Amino acid sequence: MRKKVYFIEPEDSTLLYHEEYRDKKTIKPEIAPEPKKDKFEIIGQSTSRIDGRRIVTGRAPFTHDVKLRGMLCGKILRSPHACADIISMNLSKARDLPGVKAVLQLKEGRVKYAGEQVAAVAAKDEKTATEALKLIEVEYKPLPFVVTVEKAMEDGAPKVHGDRDRENVPRKPFNDYNRGDIEKGFNEAEVVIERTYKTAVEIHHPAETHGSVARWEGDRLTVWDSTQSIFGVRDGLAYWLKVPASRIKVIKKYMGGGFGSKLGINDYTVAAALLAREAKKPVKIILSREENSLCVGNRPSSLQTIKGGVKKDGTLTALHLKNYTSGGIGRGDRCAEPIMDVYKCPNLKVEEYTVYTNTGASRPTRAPGHVQGTFALEGFMEELANEINMDPLELRKKNYATKNRGGTGIPYSSKGLDKCYELGAEKIGWKRRNKKPGQGNRTVKRGLGMASQIWWGTGRPGTSADIKLHRDGSVEAICGTQDIGCGTRTYMATVAAETLGLKPEHITVKLGNTEYPWCGSSGGSTTTPSVAPAVRDAALKAADYLKKLAANELKINPEEVSQKEGKFFARSNPKKSIPFNELLGELRREAVFHGECSGRPSEYAYNTFSAHFVEVEVDTDTGQIKVLRVVAAHESGRILNPRTAESQVVGGITQGISTALLEGRIMDNTTGNVVNRNLRDYKIATTLDMPEIIPIFVDSIDPYINNLGTKGLGEPPRIPISGAIANAVYNAIGIHLREIPMTPDKVLEALKTEGGAG
Amino acid sequence: MRKKVYFIEPEDSTLLYHEEYRDKKTIKPEIAPEPKKDKFEIIGQSTSRIDGRRIVTGRAPFTHDVKLRGMLCGKILRSPHACADIISMNLSKARDLPGVKAVLQLKEGRVKYAGEQVAAVAAKDEKTATEALKLIEVEYKPLPFVVTVEKAMEDGAPKVHGDRDRENVPRKPFNDYNRGDIEKGFNEAEVVIERTYKTAVEIHHPAETHGSVARWEGDRLTVWDSTQSIFGVRDGLAYWLKVPASRIKVIKKYMGGGFGSKLGINDYTVAAALLAREAKKPVKIILSREENSLCVGNRPSSLQTIKGGVKKDGTLTALHLKNYTSGGIGRGDRCAEPIMDVYKCPNLKVEEYTVYTNTGASRPTRAPGHVQGTFALEGFMEELANEINMDPLELRKKNYATKNRGGTGIPYSSKGLDKCYELGAEKIGWKRRNKKPGQGNRTVKRGLGMASQIWWGTGRPGTSADIKLHRDGSVEAICGTQDIGCGTRTYMATVAAETLGLKPEHITVKLGNTEYPWCGSSGGSTTTPSVAPAVRDAALKAADYLKKLAANELKINPEEVSQKEGKFFARSNPKKSIPFNELLGELRREAVFHGECSGRPSEYAYNTFSAHFVEVEVDTDTGQIKVLRVVAAHESGRILNPRTAESQVVGGITQGISTALLEGRIMDNTTGNVVNRNLRDYKIATTLDMPEIIPIFVDSIDPYINNLGTKGLGEPPRIPISGAIANAVYNAIGIHLREIPMTPDKVLEALKTEGGAG
Repeated sequence: MRKKVYFIEPEDSTLLYHEEYRDKKTIKPEIAPEPKKDKFEIIGQSTSRIDGRRIVTGRAPFTHDVKLRGMLCGKILRSPHACADIISMNLSKARDLPGVKAVLQLKEGRVKYAGEQVAAVAAKDEKTATEALKLIEVEYKPLPFVVTVEKAMEDGAPKVHGDRDRENVPRKPFNDYNRGDIEKGFNEAEVVIERTYKTAVEIHHPAETHGSVARWEGDRLTVWDSTQSIFGVRDGLAYWLKVPASRIKVIKKYMGGGFGSKLGINDYTVAAALLAREAKKPVKIILSREENSLCVGNRPSSLQTIKGGVKKDGTLTALHLKNYTSGGIGRGDRCAEPIMDVYKCPNLKVEEYTVYTNTGASRPTRAPGHVQGTFALEGFMEELANEINMDPLELRKKNYATKNRGGTGIPYSSKGLDKCYELGAEKIGWKRRNKKPGQGNRTVKRGLGMASQIWWGTGRPGTSADIKLHRDGSVEAICGTQDIGCGTRTYMATVAAETLGLKPEHITVKLGNTEYPWCGSSGGSTTTPSVAPAVRDAALKAADYLKKLAANELKINPEEVSQKEGKFFARSNPKKSIPFNELLGELRREAVFHGECSGRPSEYAYNTFSAHFVEVEVDTDTGQIKVLRVVAAHESGRILNPRTAESQVVGGITQGISTALLEGRIMDNTTGNVVNRNLRDYKIATTLDMPEIIPIFVDSIDPYINNLGTKGLGEPPRIPISGAIANAVYNAIGIHLREIPMTPDKVLEALKTEGGAG
Repeated sequence: MRKKVYFIEPEDSTLLYHEEYRDKKTIKPEIAPEPKKDKFEIIGQSTSRIDGRRIVTGRAPFTHDVKLRGMLCGKILRSPHACADIISMNLSKARDLPGVKAVLQLKEGRVKYAGEQVAAVAAKDEKTATEALKLIEVEYKPLPFVVTVEKAMEDGAPKVHGDRDRENVPRKPFNDYNRGDIEKGFNEAEVVIERTYKTAVEIHHPAETHGSVARWEGDRLTVWDSTQSIFGVRDGLAYWLKVPASRIKVIKKYMGGGFGSKLGINDYTVAAALLAREAKKPVKIILSREENSLCVGNRPSSLQTIKGGVKKDGTLTALHLKNYTSGGIGRGDRCAEPIMDVYKCPNLKVEEYTVYTNTGASRPTRAPGHVQGTFALEGFMEELANEINMDPLELRKKNYATKNRGGTGIPYSSKGLDKCYELGAEKIGWKRRNKKPGQGNRTVKRGLGMASQIWWGTGRPGTSADIKLHRDGSVEAICGTQDIGCGTRTYMATVAAETLGLKPEHITVKLGNTEYPWCGSSGGSTTTPSVAPAVRDAALKAADYLKKLAANELKINPEEVSQKEGKFFARSNPKKSIPFNELLGELRREAVFHGECSGRPSEYAYNTFSAHFVEVEVDTDTGQIKVLRVVAAHESGRILNPRTAESQVVGGITQGISTALLEGRIMDNTTGNVVNRNLRDYKIATTLDMPEIIPIFVDSIDPYINNLGTKGLGEPPRIPISGAIANAVYNAIGIHLREIPMTPDKVLEALKTEGGAG
């Protein structure tokens, strides 16, 4: 019997999907052309998603829907132990079960969290595969483990990576940042406070669970994957399978959400490919909700202590953040970016430490680090304002930074946060807030709060798109990006149509295939500002070419040609025209125009901003927090489509409310397992939890960022909301809650302890 | 009940695949760079086909092998009448048969040949589909018809296109060419003869019969087709289905031959798409050998009369060709190209007429027109030489043209025919030929003959290819061409590898998909001189880029960088090097380089040439002709791979011998049907009919044609062989056979009539 063991270490594999962020010395960014002040006809209008009907009528093919001829069902056997050595594994009984086509050992040595994959089977159907899993005999030697940060930090705690001689809390902070003179800063301060904030581990729960289908044809592999990064999966598979990337194709057409855990390669995808190779048939692996809870990643917890100094006029003089974040067996999140950047503060010290635990490795989760860091920072700003008796909005304005790195760096290319403050405060009725937090004697109390946000959300230079013109007049917009549910198809069609003087329905959009022009992962709010400029660039080239062609047909100069409503015409005499379709008939063959997202001038910092204003109601009898209203004022450059942009804001706020009030993974210190590994026990916000949401987009076109002046919007609405809720709760009941989720028990406990209003 | 009728007229549809040949005023050909005299390491070497093992072990997926989930079997109902009006059609019984998923009427009005498609079904399996065909009730009104050229030309013959008021022989010749003064030419002649040559209708019989698989996903169509023109099929489907070309993808991976009948769209492909749309499931239609005999096209017959004048020293003074060619219900072949071009002759008149018959429309067949025209011309040259008592090879040399249009046009970019004469004559032992044709008294007689050939075989400007470099060091060569069996994959790998200093197995070749860079039909011997230069162009750009990258790494000037054996190194110090894979690791993302086949200087004519020398044995008792040996001397520019080039020559000669001795469609004047519509009754040459074949490639690199100096070789070996055999037979028995196939009965009849030797 062959013995093959394949090692897939999530801890290491997380590196893979960061590779593309590396700046390579060989590529020099070019300078983005300043976006023209063209009056657009379609861009900037609220249009419906071109794939909306298809999706809501169930006709859009998701990875879960992929059915191939002869396809087998793949299942993963996972460790029940949080830490154990695999002594032996016997696959023969599973292999002998009729209908089983492949059984593979995936792991040897030590498993480090409950849910880690150890073996896999492929069988003719799900029932047989499930049965086969039970027939795999694994002899484990269970070992001591730690599954919470608190336990992991105790003296003499079992070492998570003891086999690699690594401490649970490595001495060296993974983020060690200093600016100015922190001691001098504290000396200059008139008020100094120190507070500790805590955020829970949050589990990725996309509507569509993770899954992959793998098919070999000879030495070529095709994988359909529910992924945010088709190219990352391709290159990851190449790396793990030792197969040239040139022979792997990854496809993703539609996707039921991905919030970071679908970035890059996942171990079950490699398992599907291995099983398919072994069985010589396609294999589909779809993770259950339970598996999704255990092993695809999560937002790591944080334990952030902020010490800050301020003058009585509100001038920040010093900030010091110390953070302990658990990445499970992987690295934790860098939570310091907000404190490093968002407010003017010359003296800053940051120390961030990873705490290892015997739990699944963390993965980026919609605004990784920023969600945790902003909750702490914005709560701290509220507390500081409280200490010096200042309107917290005024404190923020007082420390407004027009340069990055807390005012010590380079100017922002555009920063509309001041406008967000103005419009948001007005809309929520900021003056209505309780002058004295917790004032009044009613049982159910209302309060207003706000928080600010910074994020990146710029494009990846080199993102590529093609415009293909056919002789029958049809047009393709092609990009190897993945629409993770945000409407990429729609703006690709819109931008191409706008640029070519057509209607969006004229454009056939093609994406989600690694054979299409390169695009990076859909993460970091980078997709729109990467793909839209690339499509624009390609379409501008196509339009330029067609204008020359039309000029030739119309016997006028190319500069005199204008296009609109499917026609090219002489600007001076619109009756002199040629229809688009007819002009394309003059081509000898299909014509392809290649566009790219350009680089940006390096003398600016490129960021997105917003301020959320929240009104809450707190029932001091039950401890229940109800969010009544959110005004979300955003600056993300040019908004290509207000309707889909509003969807982003609503989606982000929904998840943010979920984070603030409901979500938190519960570990069992006895068994080492996740307690709430289903959607009954792990609560996420539903429509019933939703407040009125009022998105506001600050009218802004970033003049330097790209040819459309647009920035990302995926993560921004996810970031400030939990801090704003905590601050609104403070305004309602006069107590600062410093831990999320702010569940009723914590509210009641705080009311009891602090003896606040109620 | 819905009534839908789809009209697919082969007569019109044949136009579609000629469209791409049109020169459009908007595209100006650029000038091809002169191919460098680089010493190549791999190009020019005999290497095995990279896909050879896969093909011969049965693992290469042909269209016949495509199996999709839920796929239905499609079948076509065909007219049993050569001419009839469809009075009514009742599909309901077929529709009611369990397992039948779609039934469509495809035709109304008049059917014009036996085998024309009238309806189609899709059912769960072949048995049910066959059964359903029988349940379709068609009421025909049979009409008079003509199925042979002779009958069609008779006065009062039924008019094939009478419904369109078209004569069986349109008055206006479709080719009406005049040069010089034909009367003056004949007046100057010292000898004038006139002879008539006849060629039969030949049926396309690729090893893999025709077939298509169609699948709709929403409004997008994917078709797997056994085709020589994936882009032609795509655009044809767009035209017939009124679906934008942007939404259609055509795929062809491997193919069991295509000799012209698989150029462009076929009506069964449209039927498969219509059935699949109706049934909402994938549909596969594979034609039977009988259907292949009836309706996919054929080489039209010719009836060519040549009158020629010559001086006694061999100088041609005038040539006059009159040709009647049947294209069935379509247009016949232009057979005059050889006589218009190959020999110096200032005075020429050409008249070519189509003769319509109630038979399937013709399609280009490996060297359309040239096979027929060369048989006549080269036989006539033999007869002229005989008349003036001159060595026929000497007569050809005497009239050697270095310019096209019989010496009156522009110079050939390269013409190695003189070298072909020299090397071929030497190899066959031309001096051994019978001084007196038919000399000797043996029953079995031997003779030597030869014939010359001209063909195009240049590339299509605009043919595109990409080289994609991956960060893991793997490389793709991508072109939307189709390998119709000639080894396209192999030379794509070879050219890319040569240019990048790698081995061919390093290259992943991708082709056969309309989503890849554009390439025209694989017809006209254009594929190699289109695709190879495009790949070379892309690879040169990639190499140039990598040299700069390597120079940067090695800290030397780019001009100093050389590459070989998977390394880039300093020319002056080869130890200073960086491996190819490592260098690609420096890329930030995959890098794509786009190449194209350039245009050519317009002051030259671009053609391919060859001379075949044949030795035959004729049994004057049985009439049997046996080809003993063929020396095939070819000039096709640079030969990229002698081994695959030799295969082309062997394949062409095999088919040529088949044409010369065996093939001919037999029509039944009573039923209007094809008599020999299977491979038992329709004979094609097999290995047992094969002589010794000695290919010779004249060492030539065309200096103007493209960046590799290479020309086509697909059609050339197919062209001169039948004329050379006829001339060798004359040399053996002293009788000129003027009709192919030269079957034993014709030989015996000729021996009897002319009382030749024997």
